[in-house]
Amino acid sequence: MAGGDGIKQMPVEDEILNANQAFYDAFARGDFVAIDALWSRKHPVSVVHPGWGCLHGREAVMDSWRRILEGGRQNSIRCEQPVVYQFDRLAYVLCREVFPEGELIATNILALEEGQWCMVHHQAGPLQRPSSVNDQALH
Amino acid sequence: MAGGDGIKQMPVEDEILNANQAFYDAFARGDFVAIDALWSRKHPVSVVHPGWGCLHGREAVMDSWRRILEGGRQNSIRCEQPVVYQFDRLAYVLCREVFPEGELIATNILALEEGQWCMVHHQAGPLQRPSSVNDQALH
Repeated sequence: MAGGDGIKQMPVEDEILNANQAFYDAFARGDFVAIDALWSRKHPVSVVHPGWGCLHGREAVMDSWRRILEGGRQNSIRCEQPVVYQFDRLAYVLCREVFPEGELIATNILALEEGQWCMVHHQAGPLQRPSSVNDQALH
Repeated sequence: MAGGDGIKQMPVEDEILNANQAFYDAFARGDFVAIDALWSRKHPVSVVHPGWGCLHGREAVMDSWRRILEGGRQNSIRCEQPVVYQFDRLAYVLCREVFPEGELIATNILALEEGQWCMVHHQAGPLQRPSSVNDQALH
């Protein structure tokens, strides 16, 4: 670049947050093609939707997203309070997923492949007691 | 070793599964000291217990385990169907947590530090429909 200016690189944490946000933007748009593009094709993928068992493998994971997006109730999802944890080429984001009906807490795991942070795992579960921390029947 | 025998190394997947199982063994014993030893001291840790919000940092995470173990209902927990995903020095295990009252699905993230796989994150959420995959209100 003329003048010796360096190319400004985005901090890695911002790249991860952007990839996480892109996932929720696609979810909110009901955009299966974008969701599909954001999930890894190089690494094994898995997902745990709230109440569901573990789904392993790209076919099962993408089929689950297709079914969920067809449900059409996802349009108002918002990601809030994302926190990034990064270990070299793997990272995870913990965040709240806010719907009109309530909130979920999510763990999103992303892997760096060919310069892009791609989703490899997602677990979301219901937030029942946002303001208290108590014992409960199932730990 | 005499005779030129090599030292047999445990496959990495088995090391990760053993660390994951040690966590559930400690949980079942109500052994807070063992839980504390199994969680990382070198990396930031976090936890999402079912229904709770995200807890960040060792003090909050360990305080949550202390409260849960004091509840005393954890003795019959069993880990079933663990599946390991490994990326260099970070791995995660997806598994079922079986209690008399029901089942949870967990994502356990472990980091390799000084030769030992240590827990850095745990999220567990209720399994509601073990045999079916359907649309639902909150994806």
